[in-house]
Amino acid sequence: MRGKGHFNSLQGEHMRGTAEMIFTGDELLRGDIVNTNQAFLGESLLDVGLFATHALTVSDDLEAISQAILAAVSRYPDVLIISGGLGPTDDDLTREAVARALDRPLEHHEVLLDEIRFRFTQIGMPMGDSNRKQALLPRGATAIPFTGTAPGFWLLEGETLVAALPGVPRELVHMWAKTLEPMIRGRLGTGSGQGAPAGGVVVRKLRIYGIGESALQEVLSEVPWRGQGVDIGTRASLDGITLILRSQPTPAAQALLARIEEQAREILGTKIYGTGNADLSAVVGGLLRDRSLTICTAESCTGGLVAKRLTDVPGSSDYFLGGVVTYSNELKTDLLGVPPALLEEHGAVSEPVAAAMARGALRLLGADCAIATTGIAGPGGATPEKPVGTVYVATALGDDVQVRHFTMFRTRDEIRERTAQSSLDVFRRRLLDPLDK
Amino acid sequence: MRGKGHFNSLQGEHMRGTAEMIFTGDELLRGDIVNTNQAFLGESLLDVGLFATHALTVSDDLEAISQAILAAVSRYPDVLIISGGLGPTDDDLTREAVARALDRPLEHHEVLLDEIRFRFTQIGMPMGDSNRKQALLPRGATAIPFTGTAPGFWLLEGETLVAALPGVPRELVHMWAKTLEPMIRGRLGTGSGQGAPAGGVVVRKLRIYGIGESALQEVLSEVPWRGQGVDIGTRASLDGITLILRSQPTPAAQALLARIEEQAREILGTKIYGTGNADLSAVVGGLLRDRSLTICTAESCTGGLVAKRLTDVPGSSDYFLGGVVTYSNELKTDLLGVPPALLEEHGAVSEPVAAAMARGALRLLGADCAIATTGIAGPGGATPEKPVGTVYVATALGDDVQVRHFTMFRTRDEIRERTAQSSLDVFRRRLLDPLDK
Repeated sequence: MRGKGHFNSLQGEHMRGTAEMIFTGDELLRGDIVNTNQAFLGESLLDVGLFATHALTVSDDLEAISQAILAAVSRYPDVLIISGGLGPTDDDLTREAVARALDRPLEHHEVLLDEIRFRFTQIGMPMGDSNRKQALLPRGATAIPFTGTAPGFWLLEGETLVAALPGVPRELVHMWAKTLEPMIRGRLGTGSGQGAPAGGVVVRKLRIYGIGESALQEVLSEVPWRGQGVDIGTRASLDGITLILRSQPTPAAQALLARIEEQAREILGTKIYGTGNADLSAVVGGLLRDRSLTICTAESCTGGLVAKRLTDVPGSSDYFLGGVVTYSNELKTDLLGVPPALLEEHGAVSEPVAAAMARGALRLLGADCAIATTGIAGPGGATPEKPVGTVYVATALGDDVQVRHFTMFRTRDEIRERTAQSSLDVFRRRLLDPLDK
Repeated sequence: MRGKGHFNSLQGEHMRGTAEMIFTGDELLRGDIVNTNQAFLGESLLDVGLFATHALTVSDDLEAISQAILAAVSRYPDVLIISGGLGPTDDDLTREAVARALDRPLEHHEVLLDEIRFRFTQIGMPMGDSNRKQALLPRGATAIPFTGTAPGFWLLEGETLVAALPGVPRELVHMWAKTLEPMIRGRLGTGSGQGAPAGGVVVRKLRIYGIGESALQEVLSEVPWRGQGVDIGTRASLDGITLILRSQPTPAAQALLARIEEQAREILGTKIYGTGNADLSAVVGGLLRDRSLTICTAESCTGGLVAKRLTDVPGSSDYFLGGVVTYSNELKTDLLGVPPALLEEHGAVSEPVAAAMARGALRLLGADCAIATTGIAGPGGATPEKPVGTVYVATALGDDVQVRHFTMFRTRDEIRERTAQSSLDVFRRRLLDPLDK
């Protein structure tokens, strides 16, 4: 088993550039919950230059977990992360499994027990006897500072860093960020900066909306890059497409990455709405704040989702005044002043009604700008002329109202999510360039 | 490695009641996508009486995949499912890996190639040369009918049923439902009905809101059930708690399950809002429809989320008229008629303001009922008296307005989600019992 080509050369001589993950928990195997920790850790490991070759979920069985640990360390990964099984119950077996697999007897740490006891006082609960076993660590292990009531730990097995983290995502993310990531960067010499660590993997993410994944790939095919230490990937979701650029730590590869990003920006222009984990509603909020503008919403098919998206952002009360959801035609007329004749002639899902809704929202709510949506989210409500997915989005910058027509796909949920995202994006691009069509 | 106790006795003598899964795909290990197939298959396998002991994600590396297959079959599961790696590219290695691990040379199937070619004509594309390899199957394998362009296959290795399915969730679900599930039920004799197959595992899910997971477990501890062929689990999410009851296929165990459900219903009463995959907003919608009532919303901290939840439900326009999001104090007064003196004296996040918002919504929007929310979602806006998470929910059934106070926890997102879910639940319980506090 080797690491993935591009990342082999990242480390010192004894480093292989690989990692493994083991998740314990019958709830993951019964499908009670989806394992989001795997994706988080996979991406986070890659960010520090390690490619995960194996991610195993194994049932809460001492023998099975021990075997899994043995199999993993026998492939000599640089890092092995074990998640879950650190609680106080009989099903929590990670400590014992590490002890058995690596032949390191469990040792009691009184200081750790004090700390666990202190956590319980903080939340005003008595500590149970069963919690005592959480103060046991395999010989040679060091406890990892914890936010919940379950301490993690790490140890070195040969050249492999073995770390045990809780299964609760919040606690796992905290231990990764506060302890493991800096430790691994230190060991691998991949620096500790954000985004572009000195001498480490450079990962650059461009967030894109308004172009399809295959169209994007065609655009990118014009950029020559293969086999030169840069890796290009795309990830599509309802939020749009993320273009992920990763480069080897050589100056040549990093220069190539910068050139590719530049070319992508030239081709895609304002279709790129941000970098990293940028959220479109936060980007829109930033633009409104910069321009000292306020916004309001008038929604039909999205039923409140556009307002919800705008108010997802902390501090959005600085620019978001309010919104209305006018689901019935009567309310479109009574609240927003959409003329009944307009509804009669064109139907509620139409360009003129969308425009009238945006104007009505400005009047009613007194903001500088407005977003209005009307459409057929389905499954009912379709006509031969207006199939499910027919959507009109109106944006008003003061008196200047523009309406865009979309045909959205798939389920009711997806149509509503795409409509909300598209409406935010249309609005964003108009703010950047009022002439944008 | 053994199967999980309760399900051991489901099968014939040579059956162990266990399954394993192998997922191929670097995108799963890089965290580009979350593996939802694992949860789907884990739950589906359990429904036919098989407990998955291992679920491994392995990189697109021929040697690594072969080793994983060998390790899995050496634990003699009844079923081994391999997902992914069936496409036409160089990274699609599942066929070769099965051939190598199980020593079954690949054989060309002309009929399969014809079928693949036909799929391409259907979508109006020429078949590429690379697709030819999709007509190769390991010796002794049978193709599984496919909906995309990637055929799956299955074979028997000793007593283990080895099946290879595509990684695309839609295609995987289709092959599971159409081919694998009936085949496994046939082999295991666990029937073919839905929900409660004759002689198969009975799975019963109760959806619960308004009680904590630990409180629920305490309540359940009064019910005697251990070691009698019934398995009780809970799953917590922002939607509330799901109580999952599973029983062995014996009449005694099924009778016990029914008795446990009855006791749980007696204890929990209207805290149970539905069964199976019931959605609270659909439950509320059903109650409104039954009673021929209409509803409207007035939201502050949830910013449109309550309206969005209500309109998630197809056909919700029958009872949902509309809503307002009054984020600013001015709009609370201008639109909803909340007296400025009330805002001044008690603050926007207060019991009287929540009540006034609900009354104002009824007046403005003309519905029979209303839900209003006001709270501090954070991270800003807190005061010593009103910390982040302070929330008031008002529900109006006509003139009868009640306000509930909550303290919600954690992040802005969670506080908003919990507030929306709680407001729907409070409203539901009032509809069921207008005197409910």
